[in-house]
Amino acid sequence: MLDWCFGARRVRQMQRAFRHGKITLLCLLMTVVVLRGTIGAGKFGTPEQDFIEIREHFNNRKRVEPHRVLEEAEVSTESSESNNYATFDISKLTVDEGEDEKPDPNKPYSLGPKISDWDEQRAEWLRKNPNFPNFIGPNKPRVLLVTGSSPKPCENPVGDHYLLKAIKNKIDYCRLHGIEIFYNMALLDAEMAGFWAKLPLIRKLLLSHPEIEFLWWMDSDAMFTDMAFEVPWERYKDHNFVMHGWNEMVYDQKNWIGLNTGSFLLRNCQWALDILDAWAPMGPKGKIRTEAGKILTRELKDRPVFEADDQSAMVYLLATQRDNWGDKVYLESAYYLHGYWGILVDRYEEMIENYHPGLGDHRWPLVTHFVGCKPCGKFGDYPVERCLKQMDRAFNFGDNQILQIYGFTHKSLGSRRVKRTRNDTSNPLEVKDNLGLLHPAFKAVKVTNRLLSWNEMGWNRKNANL
Amino acid sequence: MLDWCFGARRVRQMQRAFRHGKITLLCLLMTVVVLRGTIGAGKFGTPEQDFIEIREHFNNRKRVEPHRVLEEAEVSTESSESNNYATFDISKLTVDEGEDEKPDPNKPYSLGPKISDWDEQRAEWLRKNPNFPNFIGPNKPRVLLVTGSSPKPCENPVGDHYLLKAIKNKIDYCRLHGIEIFYNMALLDAEMAGFWAKLPLIRKLLLSHPEIEFLWWMDSDAMFTDMAFEVPWERYKDHNFVMHGWNEMVYDQKNWIGLNTGSFLLRNCQWALDILDAWAPMGPKGKIRTEAGKILTRELKDRPVFEADDQSAMVYLLATQRDNWGDKVYLESAYYLHGYWGILVDRYEEMIENYHPGLGDHRWPLVTHFVGCKPCGKFGDYPVERCLKQMDRAFNFGDNQILQIYGFTHKSLGSRRVKRTRNDTSNPLEVKDNLGLLHPAFKAVKVTNRLLSWNEMGWNRKNANL
Repeated sequence: MLDWCFGARRVRQMQRAFRHGKITLLCLLMTVVVLRGTIGAGKFGTPEQDFIEIREHFNNRKRVEPHRVLEEAEVSTESSESNNYATFDISKLTVDEGEDEKPDPNKPYSLGPKISDWDEQRAEWLRKNPNFPNFIGPNKPRVLLVTGSSPKPCENPVGDHYLLKAIKNKIDYCRLHGIEIFYNMALLDAEMAGFWAKLPLIRKLLLSHPEIEFLWWMDSDAMFTDMAFEVPWERYKDHNFVMHGWNEMVYDQKNWIGLNTGSFLLRNCQWALDILDAWAPMGPKGKIRTEAGKILTRELKDRPVFEADDQSAMVYLLATQRDNWGDKVYLESAYYLHGYWGILVDRYEEMIENYHPGLGDHRWPLVTHFVGCKPCGKFGDYPVERCLKQMDRAFNFGDNQILQIYGFTHKSLGSRRVKRTRNDTSNPLEVKDNLGLLHPAFKAVKVTNRLLSWNEMGWNRKNANL
Repeated sequence: MLDWCFGARRVRQMQRAFRHGKITLLCLLMTVVVLRGTIGAGKFGTPEQDFIEIREHFNNRKRVEPHRVLEEAEVSTESSESNNYATFDISKLTVDEGEDEKPDPNKPYSLGPKISDWDEQRAEWLRKNPNFPNFIGPNKPRVLLVTGSSPKPCENPVGDHYLLKAIKNKIDYCRLHGIEIFYNMALLDAEMAGFWAKLPLIRKLLLSHPEIEFLWWMDSDAMFTDMAFEVPWERYKDHNFVMHGWNEMVYDQKNWIGLNTGSFLLRNCQWALDILDAWAPMGPKGKIRTEAGKILTRELKDRPVFEADDQSAMVYLLATQRDNWGDKVYLESAYYLHGYWGILVDRYEEMIENYHPGLGDHRWPLVTHFVGCKPCGKFGDYPVERCLKQMDRAFNFGDNQILQIYGFTHKSLGSRRVKRTRNDTSNPLEVKDNLGLLHPAFKAVKVTNRLLSWNEMGWNRKNANL
């Protein structure tokens, strides 16, 4: 009860001021009782839990009473003059005036005007703009990595910090591999909010950027954990759509996790516009998405009951229309274009011990995707502590490959702090660059199994503090 | 007192449970008194203020009693199984074990081993690596924009959201202008924490990336507000260091705000290493930085009393050693390489009315820098509400130039929401691109005064909801 002692000291001061010495003890007792009642702890948690529950108490009330935001805005002048961020209520800033245009219920949803000659339009543009070739090297297409997050702050305060780490991680990989980044923070189509928002965004970007050959969609909760792995672009020369997945699970089992739409490659072509049109119809918010969800849960293996999501819809589309799309879809399982965090994050130490960056597969995954952690939401499907701890580990695992270029490493996979791994020299350009990470852009990184393991390269337990 | 009524209802339930009906009123009264005492409100603020102050109370105590973090980690198992982010205490994750190596007090601080032949080393490397030229076009140097933030979450929860918006803003400008980004989240040199951390980082990057011709440092609280403006690189062909500032204020008045080090260009050459070495000595944390601060406050015009900062040190260095450095330093005031937010943010509407992107100066500033707002800190020098509101406006002002490429705009400079500004067509490549923003990379953007104003281009009040 250390905390109530703090309180007690304050209380005694108050009493002297109020000259009510006699009832001190009674009040102290009842204060504890009333405090616990007021803040709605219910159970007798730790003081920290109580404090959090107070925050919840206020937050929830604020959410269920939107009109309060206005009241606060009006009475905010006084507190708005404070320079203290901790005492500032962000909701005072929320300016989301204006409704989104209501869609016409009579006409079916469409991502945009029908386009059937995109390949011709794009080819002509490329002819006229030789300064913007769609290939920037042999077997090296011009790629735009597209990701994003809500224009609002996360529902939980720490979420934005993990979004920041996730985009820093993507900036690093994309700088090393000559990939451009588009970070979206705008909701372009209110009907397609949520997991479906990527569809109108992707179509818009394909049509605006004919110079882009491949668009790489990546969820905000996915991180690059192999900074040396170059996507085997030439492998996809006859395909338009690359997702991590397995033919059997999608086409035979119709399993809703037979593929993952959190990280995929889409070629800029007419076929891509067509499959986006075929993908979109289950997306519109409300009745359509709800009813479609029932169909998907009924038709797909192991799918829980919830509204239609883009991943299930893609499995359903491919399983039911394989003849239309199958020959141009490449379900990749030879490396982790998407890798489920649950089966990877506890093996990082083993990977460091035995393997090295550049492999991209179970030995050193290209991407670790925190499916179900929802770090920017209020609730995830997994324990929060595990999600955040493992996201830090994944970030540091990838970041160590960046830091080694400059002679640093994280003190451990769980530590934000870094330490030197070598001393600076007066001949910095003579430092060996084992992974070819210093200047790999525009070149596929050649990595053979004869390459030393991360540890043999000097990244032993002592260095990595494992 | 609406909130205490809520409390009261809860209290009454408690009393029924405790069957202490008689002393309800007395306790209720004293509860308010004791609450205010306990949470250290001191003054009688709004309930929201009190709640925040409770958080403060706990946070502060947590900081001054680091051992508590361990205790919490030990007792955390139960709550760690919760999937609710709101009830999770981030401090449980803090793994900052291990002290940073203590510097040898006997040897003077140095950024690294002395290098005196960098120009030769770099020239040889460039000869041997023709795939990585330091110029990527006529008068277009290869540029690396360097920014960053603390590896820890911000001291105020909303800070990370603004860091995220600031890096999204930089990603956009740099994509359009063919500039690479390095986002730093590591403290490479504990002695140089704070505003000085950029020095060891910059030196390390110059030496690791001989292909980079110019390094562009930008603070995390600065945002691009002119997406069309291309830096006039050829103007600096005979200079190595470009900062926003005025010769008279620096060399004659020795005014500590005669230049700004929140956004500057530094050429990758021996001269740059030399000025970094001359700049660094006032940086080391502790006695040196404190004592140096006294000298700077005494010697520089209008400087408040505080420890040595990198900006004051640069003014002092140039003012006292103009002969050594002056001829290679370009103090730019023809456009806003750095622009103080206080004189710009209230004029955005006027700029939209009369001018257009691409000017970079007072008519349409290249950079709006939120000096003194410290959005990631606890306290700023300005009212929080003004800082956050104006940061949103600056972000949206810049973001509108990105969104217009795709036919969208923010509903107002204060709104996160966007709306269409034109309908999609089936000939997307025929859309006029007034600002040349779709494909300006590797090309200086030509903007003449004959170009229409933002409003004349269709960005009238109705569109922008001003």
